[in-house]
Amino acid sequence: MKPMNVTQKLISSHLIEGEMKPGSEIGLKIDQALLQDATGTLVQLELEAMGLDQAKTEVAVQYVDHNLLQTDFKNADDHLFLHSAAQKFGLWFSRPGNGVSHPIHMERFGKPGKTLVGSDSHSCAAGSLGMLAIGTGGLDVAAAIAGQPYFVKMPKVMGVKLTGKLPDWVSAKDVILEMLRRHDVKGGVGKIIEYHGDGLEQLSAMDRHVIANMGAELGATTTVFPSDGETKRFLKSQGREEDWQELKADEGASYDLEDEIVLDNLVPLIALPTSPGNVVPVREVEGRPISQVVIGSSANPGLRDFWIAGAIVEGKSTAEEVSFDINPTSRQIIQNMIENKAFGNLITAGARFHQSGCMGCIGMGQAPASNTISLRTMPRNFPDRSGTKDDQVYLCSPETAAASALTGKITDPRDLEELYDMKYPKFEAPELHIINEDMLVAPPKNTTALELKKGPNIKSLPEMEGLKSEYEIPVLLKMGDNISTDEIMKAGADVLPFRSNVPKISEFSYAVIDETFYKRALDAKEEFGGHIVIAGENYAQGSSREHAAIAPKYLGQVAVIAKDYARIAWQNLVNFGILPLEFENDGDLEKIEQGALVSFKNLKKDVRERNPIRVQVKNKNEDFEITVSHSLSERQIDLLMKGGVINDFREKLAS
Amino acid sequence: MKPMNVTQKLISSHLIEGEMKPGSEIGLKIDQALLQDATGTLVQLELEAMGLDQAKTEVAVQYVDHNLLQTDFKNADDHLFLHSAAQKFGLWFSRPGNGVSHPIHMERFGKPGKTLVGSDSHSCAAGSLGMLAIGTGGLDVAAAIAGQPYFVKMPKVMGVKLTGKLPDWVSAKDVILEMLRRHDVKGGVGKIIEYHGDGLEQLSAMDRHVIANMGAELGATTTVFPSDGETKRFLKSQGREEDWQELKADEGASYDLEDEIVLDNLVPLIALPTSPGNVVPVREVEGRPISQVVIGSSANPGLRDFWIAGAIVEGKSTAEEVSFDINPTSRQIIQNMIENKAFGNLITAGARFHQSGCMGCIGMGQAPASNTISLRTMPRNFPDRSGTKDDQVYLCSPETAAASALTGKITDPRDLEELYDMKYPKFEAPELHIINEDMLVAPPKNTTALELKKGPNIKSLPEMEGLKSEYEIPVLLKMGDNISTDEIMKAGADVLPFRSNVPKISEFSYAVIDETFYKRALDAKEEFGGHIVIAGENYAQGSSREHAAIAPKYLGQVAVIAKDYARIAWQNLVNFGILPLEFENDGDLEKIEQGALVSFKNLKKDVRERNPIRVQVKNKNEDFEITVSHSLSERQIDLLMKGGVINDFREKLAS
Repeated sequence: MKPMNVTQKLISSHLIEGEMKPGSEIGLKIDQALLQDATGTLVQLELEAMGLDQAKTEVAVQYVDHNLLQTDFKNADDHLFLHSAAQKFGLWFSRPGNGVSHPIHMERFGKPGKTLVGSDSHSCAAGSLGMLAIGTGGLDVAAAIAGQPYFVKMPKVMGVKLTGKLPDWVSAKDVILEMLRRHDVKGGVGKIIEYHGDGLEQLSAMDRHVIANMGAELGATTTVFPSDGETKRFLKSQGREEDWQELKADEGASYDLEDEIVLDNLVPLIALPTSPGNVVPVREVEGRPISQVVIGSSANPGLRDFWIAGAIVEGKSTAEEVSFDINPTSRQIIQNMIENKAFGNLITAGARFHQSGCMGCIGMGQAPASNTISLRTMPRNFPDRSGTKDDQVYLCSPETAAASALTGKITDPRDLEELYDMKYPKFEAPELHIINEDMLVAPPKNTTALELKKGPNIKSLPEMEGLKSEYEIPVLLKMGDNISTDEIMKAGADVLPFRSNVPKISEFSYAVIDETFYKRALDAKEEFGGHIVIAGENYAQGSSREHAAIAPKYLGQVAVIAKDYARIAWQNLVNFGILPLEFENDGDLEKIEQGALVSFKNLKKDVRERNPIRVQVKNKNEDFEITVSHSLSERQIDLLMKGGVINDFREKLAS
Repeated sequence: MKPMNVTQKLISSHLIEGEMKPGSEIGLKIDQALLQDATGTLVQLELEAMGLDQAKTEVAVQYVDHNLLQTDFKNADDHLFLHSAAQKFGLWFSRPGNGVSHPIHMERFGKPGKTLVGSDSHSCAAGSLGMLAIGTGGLDVAAAIAGQPYFVKMPKVMGVKLTGKLPDWVSAKDVILEMLRRHDVKGGVGKIIEYHGDGLEQLSAMDRHVIANMGAELGATTTVFPSDGETKRFLKSQGREEDWQELKADEGASYDLEDEIVLDNLVPLIALPTSPGNVVPVREVEGRPISQVVIGSSANPGLRDFWIAGAIVEGKSTAEEVSFDINPTSRQIIQNMIENKAFGNLITAGARFHQSGCMGCIGMGQAPASNTISLRTMPRNFPDRSGTKDDQVYLCSPETAAASALTGKITDPRDLEELYDMKYPKFEAPELHIINEDMLVAPPKNTTALELKKGPNIKSLPEMEGLKSEYEIPVLLKMGDNISTDEIMKAGADVLPFRSNVPKISEFSYAVIDETFYKRALDAKEEFGGHIVIAGENYAQGSSREHAAIAPKYLGQVAVIAKDYARIAWQNLVNFGILPLEFENDGDLEKIEQGALVSFKNLKKDVRERNPIRVQVKNKNEDFEITVSHSLSERQIDLLMKGGVINDFREKLAS
């Protein structure tokens, strides 16, 4: 047998459909699922709509880490709903404030050799333990929890060989920043990044988490590490030695692509605004004044990361004008931080401690002051993500962040040796961590009698109608090229609070383009039984949010006709039962007026048999016919006939 | 000499003007000033406008505890502004996250025998140390910082004799809840409450803080405790024994009013929604399910309060459905909580720790879920104050809160003896606290060269014009009785962020009544040089917010003519240079049309000489004359001629 790398071993042991050939679709058995609260409410509503009785994965966990700032009833209501839903559908529930999903999952649930899907882009962090862990859309995760395979195009595997040893004051964050410096934010697209080589020996499991986590910023499908002696030590320190198994690349295994990092050559690095790929040595920007330092997030979540910051500031005070914000990872890590003095050192030096969660990393609090620099150990610095317009967020290691907090300006941590006569503090990991699982609520044995707790802003998903053969419906909107999901369903503070309320959020459908859309769609649903919209190229590009399909579906959208589609959105349309059609003749877009009536006959038959689909168009002053087509798979055609994934699963469940 | 009580001693030693006769105005020398951030930005802008060089009080401190959740640039910008302003005007600056103003002030700055004004209603808490501490409007505090006396009507003194000893499981919060049960939220209006008697011996200085703090909820002008051996012990434990002096009522001192509480007879009490005066024994409502417990705030800020909660939950887990939110008081108290294990006990039991500050007490975070009960150790439970509409907030002691967090329902803490075989944990105060003053930035020696750091949303106060003798200006708005300051300048999330930006916030002037007001006022300023408004009885009742005067003044408001005025607002109008006139004949209100032109001649002379003021009114179709008057003091007339307190101070400074 051909020697395999770790990625290939993980995939082949979970392959249900397809072939391990880069680019071809594969279906994988999923062992674990991870949900966070921002995406999780919709996933739980999907599980409700699917009629799931009990999660089919080995482990599924609902975390609450994103929306912890409760400025009105909605977030608190969401927490109660998620708790009740986790209980009803047989998921673990990590109580609000227990901490950030990815590190907790790694500490309490991660298992070498297993697969995981998560409704959060940084789910790839679990790759640090030798898992195949992929961040994906909510409905994919719901389907996995319901026991369905996860479908993905087989990525290329990029082997990155790590050799040598990290110098003092340089740590795991600098390794992933070096990867971003080399490959930028699209360098990992369509790839799984697998680390190997002697350099791994020096990297703890949590160091590997730092590197795996920000694989998301490279655009990679996921990141994979082997499961070795260090993995075993880590699991033992978490009281879970029995969950360890070795997982290494075979002798002579190869990779589709190769890269190498000599750790000895790395220096402290920093990502400048406004992209994680905008990486330079700290030296190049040192001396710039800062107003804020934030330590924490899933990109630097480990006990070591807080400990090193604490050791650097011990007995000193942070610069007067710096807000030194600490975002602890989890309740368990706080307990360990108290034990190893990191907590006391940080507080004494002036830290503002926040509850365990995602906080400023997802723009939920601690937005920096105008026109000032914020240094963060977080994974992302996209424009305005911090909550401050035209923000200046820099990403760096805890060493660089803590050094800069002391001086009040961007500082290469190696300068601490001279500035404070400091030796690089060496972390000694505890043999056994203090473990606290009390805030992880186990799924109950018998769930049938349990009720979902829905506050006034949480509504069950509406029923979704399957495709019919005949329609005479209006063209409610005519759009150009590159319409984004932000235009179809905008995000922002006025809309996001309604993420669990499809009837309400649907009021914002296409509002960026046309504020009258919602009203017109309701009227068309009443009068004609639905509507279509038409668009140019690359329809529904951008964010993968599912609301850009659910909300139009709720308003009666039967089909879209576009020149072509963005990949994820195209899949989302199908998943929620909207037919994505393509113009045979691109010029037809011009000819159709907004407000035209279009008629379909024999639509189901034509879709099924892949016939050219004839559409009668009635403009104000002319009638004509155009031809459209689709590029759906058989599986997708089945889904559309039934009205989407949820109805499909319901049927399977009934039979 | 007649024997004096503590209140009389404090007042007589600071009396600059007037007599200590209940109801007559007195002017007091002010030793200390306290600012928080929500009101402080305006106070600092007032100091800027006054041209102050250096604070004249012995101690003035700018705290940052209200607006700590940074969801955009504004709060972070405010923090930088307040820091720079504190430095420039010679105030201490307590850095964001250092903690809640009242307990920090008590620990680090409070001094028996001193007077204090604070721009926060709970400033009365400093009475716990034998101070005369009064919460008041921002401009009063600015004037005090600038060395001006503080004017107040001499209140009655209510002596409350405490006798006996508190039973187990009953603590200081139950004492003040008992006061609220007896006297309700208006029972303290026009009074200073002075505690005395043997029962004081058992109450620590921080216990007295709990009681003094919520004197604000009784509506009292302030609360006063003697300075005794316990006060000395407390100051010693804070490393400040030298700041102690004894301050006791003379033998035979009397009070205008008297009350007595036998501590032995108290039971655990709880205030039901939606008033702190709605107090019943916990027994009456025990068993009601809860979704949240919040421990902390300036109403239960002491180390003991957190310690007792920690001791109650030690080794246990809070009920699954309860969010157990801990709002630590200050960085220093967190350090002491780590030391005495309270922090670890609380975290281990499931606590969500938040940064030190006011948090949910002022509706900044941790709003409870819909239709669920939140138990809080905070001072207020007015409707919707938590951030959740129709909230159900109950106020209680840390003992009751912690017991209920364990059981998931309202629980009398005395039941813990049986439920958990628990003895009442006895707190031993440390002889010397861990002290952390690092986040208190001292005022610099030389401040002249310092610049104010103003983010884009912080604007200097506009110039205010003094009264002129002749006007021909329109009546821009005609209003009825009981117009509130909420109608003149509404609060809320769309308005409050502009509290430091008068030009911007003025856009909302009277918008609740008439959305066109702003535009019309700008036009009238341009065309006529100003405007007036007319109203019925009790004009500008409600909240004391100064923006209800500053913003209309900015838009050119010269005078108001009303039947009569709410007390505080009347003073605010004068302070900011708007002339509050009264109809001689109430029926004249009816006769004047909105849009009428009114003419004044010899206005300055008539105001100064208290002549009847004749006003020519031009309605659309008729002209007539009415007579109005005022009831201003000489001091207030002076202020109006100059355009208000700020201009007055500037003149004094120049001369």
